Amino acid sequence: MEDKIQKIKEAVEKELSCSAHSLDHVTRVYNFALNLAEGENVDMEVLKAAILLHDIARVKEDTDPSGNTNHALLGAQLAEPILKELGFTEEKVKHIQDCVRTHRYREGDEPQTLEAKILFDADKIDLTGCIGIARAFAISGQYGQKIYSDVFLEDYIKENLAGGKANGKIKDVSKHAPNLEFETKFKFIPNKLYTKKAKEIGKQRVEFMEQFFERLKKELKGEV
Amino acid sequence: MEDKIQKIKEAVEKELSCSAHSLDHVTRVYNFALNLAEGENVDMEVLKAAILLHDIARVKEDTDPSGNTNHALLGAQLAEPILKELGFTEEKVKHIQDCVRTHRYREGDEPQTLEAKILFDADKIDLTGCIGIARAFAISGQYGQKIYSDVFLEDYIKENLAGGKANGKIKDVSKHAPNLEFETKFKFIPNKLYTKKAKEIGKQRVEFMEQFFERLKKELKGEV
Repeated sequence: MEDKIQKIKEAVEKELSCSAHSLDHVTRVYNFALNLAEGENVDMEVLKAAILLHDIARVKEDTDPSGNTNHALLGAQLAEPILKELGFTEEKVKHIQDCVRTHRYREGDEPQTLEAKILFDADKIDLTGCIGIARAFAISGQYGQKIYSDVFLEDYIKENLAGGKANGKIKDVSKHAPNLEFETKFKFIPNKLYTKKAKEIGKQRVEFMEQFFERLKKELKGEV
Repeated sequence: MEDKIQKIKEAVEKELSCSAHSLDHVTRVYNFALNLAEGENVDMEVLKAAILLHDIARVKEDTDPSGNTNHALLGAQLAEPILKELGFTEEKVKHIQDCVRTHRYREGDEPQTLEAKILFDADKIDLTGCIGIARAFAISGQYGQKIYSDVFLEDYIKENLAGGKANGKIKDVSKHAPNLEFETKFKFIPNKLYTKKAKEIGKQRVEFMEQFFERLKKELKGEV
């Protein structure tokens, strides 16, 4: 089994070679998912393959100027020949593809199997806590956003999230910042998770984020 | 006085128009410095002018391919004609230039006057706490760095800080990350500050940063 997993890893690294962030993320998801799988009746081969492959189309989505690429759907397609080539049974290929297809947060089908749920949870947990804060500000720096946006939350939701969002991209980047992502997305992650362990850790991590953004606001006012 | 300060603000905004980050930073330093100046015997005109002008050459330093521009020295030079044009006395021009020239952290003369010390402290405080964390990760995202580097601290210091640093730029960006900046720079900021109030706030902010990076490390190990 480990030989196949290694081959999948190489295929993914080739596909994501231009994105150190994506590869680091895959590694973190991998480690956290193995944590979640401990003591559970899990098909480890399916889980490991699905984790490694879940973001294989991430760079393709990010660099598609049309904005029409969905990396979960495309990833499931790209996974098929790789897995067949390595001799995975048709049933396992289908199972792994389902995991990859259903790992997306905002849209699409919900994960059904335990393996798909563990992948989903580990992927979402990587948006929370200090890792989530670090990633959110790294992205804000990459896209030249502010470190804090004091735009009125209701206006932001109306403009960007209530049908105003084109292809999942934020309309007005100048008004965007990690605190808005937290208030509209990260904060609700624990409720969307499937496994008990991930839910518990997710809650603690979101509490820390809450403290962070409250403190940031106070610092900006010169209060602390 | 406010009319002159407004004119200086416009000159700085023109110079930093391509960098929302620099302008936001100047605004934060301005607000925090006014805080520090409260109840102190401070020449507010000098202080306000110096704060607004302190990073006027920031974009010029960042975009100079030779790496030879020092924005504190160049900023003091650029300030002179602006201030003279606005009718500042020669004494005040010299005082403001001294503030701008001595605000740099790592090198150059130390600030001598209270106004120069307040500018120095307010500028450095903006590298600490949640603001410091946010700025550090934004920069890491902008330059494609990792969110955490587990390079051995002593090796990093030897390679980058003990004479290995060319023009203040980090030699090997792939090994660089905010936790190393914290361990080698941000952590020591409170000791370098001049005013009591800034020292106290700086200590609390660095404590929060310490907690943040400890938690980040634990999250990366899957412990929390």
